Amino acid sequence: MVPHLVTALNGPLLDLEKKILNATPAIERWFRLEWQEHTPPFYCSVDLRNAGFKLAPVDTNLYPAGFNNLAPEMLPLAVQAAMAAIEKYCPDAKNLLLIPETNNRSSFYLQNIARMIQIFRQTGLNVRLGSLSDDIKTPTPIDLPDGSTLTLEPLERSANGRRLGLKNFDPCTILLNDDLSAGIPAILENLNEQTLLPPLHAGWALRRKSNHFSAYDDVVKKFAKMNDIDAWMLNPYFAKCGKVDFKDHSGEEALAAQVDALLTKIRKKYREYGIKETPFVIIKADAGTYGMGIMTVKDGSEVKDMTAKQRSRMAVVKDGHEVTDVIIQEGVHTFERINDSVAEPVVMMIDRYVVGGYYRVHADRDINENLNAPGAHFVPLAFAQQHSLPDMHAKPGTTAPNRFYLYGVVARLALLAASIELEKTDPNPEVY
Amino acid sequence: MVPHLVTALNGPLLDLEKKILNATPAIERWFRLEWQEHTPPFYCSVDLRNAGFKLAPVDTNLYPAGFNNLAPEMLPLAVQAAMAAIEKYCPDAKNLLLIPETNNRSSFYLQNIARMIQIFRQTGLNVRLGSLSDDIKTPTPIDLPDGSTLTLEPLERSANGRRLGLKNFDPCTILLNDDLSAGIPAILENLNEQTLLPPLHAGWALRRKSNHFSAYDDVVKKFAKMNDIDAWMLNPYFAKCGKVDFKDHSGEEALAAQVDALLTKIRKKYREYGIKETPFVIIKADAGTYGMGIMTVKDGSEVKDMTAKQRSRMAVVKDGHEVTDVIIQEGVHTFERINDSVAEPVVMMIDRYVVGGYYRVHADRDINENLNAPGAHFVPLAFAQQHSLPDMHAKPGTTAPNRFYLYGVVARLALLAASIELEKTDPNPEVY
Repeated sequence: MVPHLVTALNGPLLDLEKKILNATPAIERWFRLEWQEHTPPFYCSVDLRNAGFKLAPVDTNLYPAGFNNLAPEMLPLAVQAAMAAIEKYCPDAKNLLLIPETNNRSSFYLQNIARMIQIFRQTGLNVRLGSLSDDIKTPTPIDLPDGSTLTLEPLERSANGRRLGLKNFDPCTILLNDDLSAGIPAILENLNEQTLLPPLHAGWALRRKSNHFSAYDDVVKKFAKMNDIDAWMLNPYFAKCGKVDFKDHSGEEALAAQVDALLTKIRKKYREYGIKETPFVIIKADAGTYGMGIMTVKDGSEVKDMTAKQRSRMAVVKDGHEVTDVIIQEGVHTFERINDSVAEPVVMMIDRYVVGGYYRVHADRDINENLNAPGAHFVPLAFAQQHSLPDMHAKPGTTAPNRFYLYGVVARLALLAASIELEKTDPNPEVY
Repeated sequence: MVPHLVTALNGPLLDLEKKILNATPAIERWFRLEWQEHTPPFYCSVDLRNAGFKLAPVDTNLYPAGFNNLAPEMLPLAVQAAMAAIEKYCPDAKNLLLIPETNNRSSFYLQNIARMIQIFRQTGLNVRLGSLSDDIKTPTPIDLPDGSTLTLEPLERSANGRRLGLKNFDPCTILLNDDLSAGIPAILENLNEQTLLPPLHAGWALRRKSNHFSAYDDVVKKFAKMNDIDAWMLNPYFAKCGKVDFKDHSGEEALAAQVDALLTKIRKKYREYGIKETPFVIIKADAGTYGMGIMTVKDGSEVKDMTAKQRSRMAVVKDGHEVTDVIIQEGVHTFERINDSVAEPVVMMIDRYVVGGYYRVHADRDINENLNAPGAHFVPLAFAQQHSLPDMHAKPGTTAPNRFYLYGVVARLALLAASIELEKTDPNPEVY
């Protein structure tokens, strides 16, 4: 099943699909050469928005969940990609320590962890789960809805303090699935003998969205030039705004002015392409995730007219951290629908391979709202299995494989941007 | 559907499956480390024989056909593996020239070529077909049963003589699917600017089975030691015998003696494991393929008592080349059956990945005969898709995924042997 595009691909995006399908050999070659220069993150998921006239990534998650939402037929593909990733980072690995999100006991999330364990076991690794939570003092079984059980075990540093593991389990590789919004736990620091994936600076304790989207700007500029397309088709405008305090109103004037400036730029593009929608921007925290501290705005004045409730929602993200730096990002309408519900595609990648995807389908939200909101009711819908294989003979804009191929290309642009972002922000860059 | 094992896995092989499943992390790690040292052939298929008490590769094909026999669900896996292979050999490739077998117009073979084109197109390469045949002087369309068309084009060397391509098509990579039994065509020689895969010395003009099985001996010895198993369980005994002329009977005495010596070794092993079958050996040409020049023998005297017809069949292999060197290989009974027909598994690999497999099912042949005979009626049966993913919780010997995993391990041992064989026989080895 493929979501119905409310505005069937037309005009600019239809043209984009044509160009990208025709340029497949050049595009794949370009990616191959970029991956010679840049190392992709170990794993990654990218949230996309398809406005019919524009297709863009809005979130690049370096601690992806949702592997349980993939079609079971995709599992061998994920295993093969994981084999390639393991081979690159730690060919001599036997034991993999997986650290799930600290306090997430949602059964959906736990099923994601169970699926990840399955994938990595099938690459031939011994996999066990370590918990960052202080509450886990002994091996703690957690029952899953399907009747299986996960066991969380307390993390421990080795006697000499140099390695991290579990009781009777010394891993070569540690795979983190907690985004470190709460800061970097001391137990994860100074692990020089083991491979910690992703590296600590990929976590929200240090990561900034503005660095990512700035890297994405550069990647898309190059890609657009190569394919003779307008980079804006794949790239939401954004601006960074520092020193905002939503509680005491300081910095609000500057934020409102930046919002208006961005809206003016978007309106110009809408006129150029004859787009009748109302432009909007998203204001979100530069650090952090989880759908908190996110606001949809259609005019700079809305920033100044925020209610006390809106202010306190914007002022704090996950784990109580205060927002002072925000980014303003061009909003991308989502025009995909399943049974009248808004659908947002999520593309999952391991190493440099697209291993599948699913739709986040939301019954109660509007086209210009964030679909990844707390408590959001969403239905995962696995991409059809042939997602990664374009159908070269089909009419552009008509087939699921081609739409998924396009999604895979854009998601990989975001993946490449994440690689470059992590290189640039590496506190201990390797010098050659 | 999975072939029924006539002799359900029992005794030694059941024990082997147990050991191999339990050792999966160590085995996968070992393969990862071996692939750091050795480069796998670009693609490869391995014919296996499962005797219930013994599981062994009997043929390692470096110009595999049969991609059309894979389950369509496996296609994304093949594409992803091909992406990894292309990335390794020629990341900057855009054009791939595929050279099919020169005079094979069987519709099965052509469907294999069509499937290969599909796989490589979907990695993002432009793929065209070049023919080694002198009869192809202009682009020649060939209709396939499914209504599609392949176009064979004449090969041409560039004006300066340094590159090989087609009219208006300059490939970075040339993928050969002809095994060069007829010798090395001049047009393929001295291609120093392009990547020719596999290299010329992988073809039967230069390749020798004895080199392969000698490399396999070493690989299996290492693997068996690591897993505490008897290497014989995975390895047919073999001996090489040179200077045999079937026409004038010279060398036959020595051959008969070697046959008897090998049979004695096998009988000893059969006694050790309480195997009641009658041992046999296969005599085949050291160079060449295609099921010609192959003979099943249960006693040395049979060599001397060959009929004139048998002699002339043994004396010549494909393309009329004379046999002078032969190998004697321990015969492995095949005890897999589908509807009373003998079934022989074939495992397909691209780069270091198992991408699927199928059964060669033969209605008219016996358990100790070669199933890859000219004109053989065979029915391909695709492996179930989850072939590469063992089911760790299943009882040993009972599940298809576990049998396929075991097959994948043994096929990769043969793949590793082929890598080492090609390194050792490289006429222009790279020096580090």
